[in-house]
Amino acid sequence: MSEANKIGRYEFVAEPFHVDFSGHLTLGVLGNHLLNCAGFHATERGFGIATLNEDNYTWVLSRLAIEMDDLPLQYEHFSVQTWVENVYRLFTDRNFALINGEGKTIGYARSVWAMINLNSRKPADLLSLHNGSITDYVCDAPCPIAKPSRIKVGAQAPTASLQAKYSDIDINGHFNSIRYIEHILDLFPLDRYRAQRIRRFEIAYVTESYFGDNLDFFVDEEENGTVCVEVRKPSGEVTCRSKMEFVPIA
Amino acid sequence: MSEANKIGRYEFVAEPFHVDFSGHLTLGVLGNHLLNCAGFHATERGFGIATLNEDNYTWVLSRLAIEMDDLPLQYEHFSVQTWVENVYRLFTDRNFALINGEGKTIGYARSVWAMINLNSRKPADLLSLHNGSITDYVCDAPCPIAKPSRIKVGAQAPTASLQAKYSDIDINGHFNSIRYIEHILDLFPLDRYRAQRIRRFEIAYVTESYFGDNLDFFVDEEENGTVCVEVRKPSGEVTCRSKMEFVPIA
Repeated sequence: MSEANKIGRYEFVAEPFHVDFSGHLTLGVLGNHLLNCAGFHATERGFGIATLNEDNYTWVLSRLAIEMDDLPLQYEHFSVQTWVENVYRLFTDRNFALINGEGKTIGYARSVWAMINLNSRKPADLLSLHNGSITDYVCDAPCPIAKPSRIKVGAQAPTASLQAKYSDIDINGHFNSIRYIEHILDLFPLDRYRAQRIRRFEIAYVTESYFGDNLDFFVDEEENGTVCVEVRKPSGEVTCRSKMEFVPIA
Repeated sequence: MSEANKIGRYEFVAEPFHVDFSGHLTLGVLGNHLLNCAGFHATERGFGIATLNEDNYTWVLSRLAIEMDDLPLQYEHFSVQTWVENVYRLFTDRNFALINGEGKTIGYARSVWAMINLNSRKPADLLSLHNGSITDYVCDAPCPIAKPSRIKVGAQAPTASLQAKYSDIDINGHFNSIRYIEHILDLFPLDRYRAQRIRRFEIAYVTESYFGDNLDFFVDEEENGTVCVEVRKPSGEVTCRSKMEFVPIA
């Protein structure tokens, strides 16, 4: 198979309610587009959710790291490319590139996925899925950003808290992956976003949370513009961790 | 101009993060699609935001009423039709129909818009815009749902409160119209949505709110499944009102 054939490309436009106060696409909406592209790419190649569900398997997003030099502006057309970088027994690495309206690559993303059995909730062996056919799509297109890192948070008291509501819950009854990104971005005041932008955003999903769950946001603010966030249930159970790199707006 | 030419039709698919726990498209996402369609339709006919902004005018949504027999399910393709029903001096009525994946019309919506001058914030005369050319697009396609109604709320104490955050704010620096819908839907527990669905949802936008504003949600629950909501700033100033009709799920 040619390398080009292994890369999916999908077109978007930055809608008015998908941009923030500065007119740039929000990272939550970008995350949603990336996950949709992962779905389109997998479906077109026979290993999408719908096909898997027939066999009682589903994809679960474990980590996402997005690194952007810039973000599309309101009404700008842009495209997302995606491909599979690696397939291991229990995880697969899927990468993304974001190309702006002028054809310039303005950022990349990395994601790590597992597959689970919907009955047992246990991880599945990706190398035996459809006789390992997913490995036919492995592609070494460049993705010059660091892999998702380990995130440690030391804060002893939460900065913010919320209770999971109707709009937070997805079709599986879980707090949805994109809403976590939005709630984490909501930890910061507009004044910060006027002076700084998030160059790199990482999130690692740890355990599921559900409607009505109380979630506490623990925040470590480091001196170099790095912010780490851990979201915990009152029991102390971690639902996700995030790490952001803020840089001054040029 | 033929009637068919006056009606815009736009295609969508219900994305995984755009459906709720029941697998149905959320009313917030549907509202976003409707407003986008209004924008596409107006732009294609020369009276869109971009053209208007050159002359320092913009469209402002005043009211929206959505009435649905059903909502698209995850991955379902659907389309939205939109047309201009009336043009008055200070307001225009724009209607919508939603057609599901089987080609069946499953709901309608009505919206009321004003145009304002971006400098003076004062309403503009729609009949003199581009020599009244918007009236060329008036179309009497059927829209068999009631017009937006007057909403009155008597509740003395708020049911919920929030502070406007980064994700709530749009490119104009205002609390965004779609986020209001989401926060209003979040007033109700999942158990209610398991037993009932919202057959009709109305919202009237009154005054703008901004980042950091505290918003209180006053709720009147009536016996027939009708719920009215008024969102107020601590000063008592009303930002929007909403009215919903819940019906048992068949």
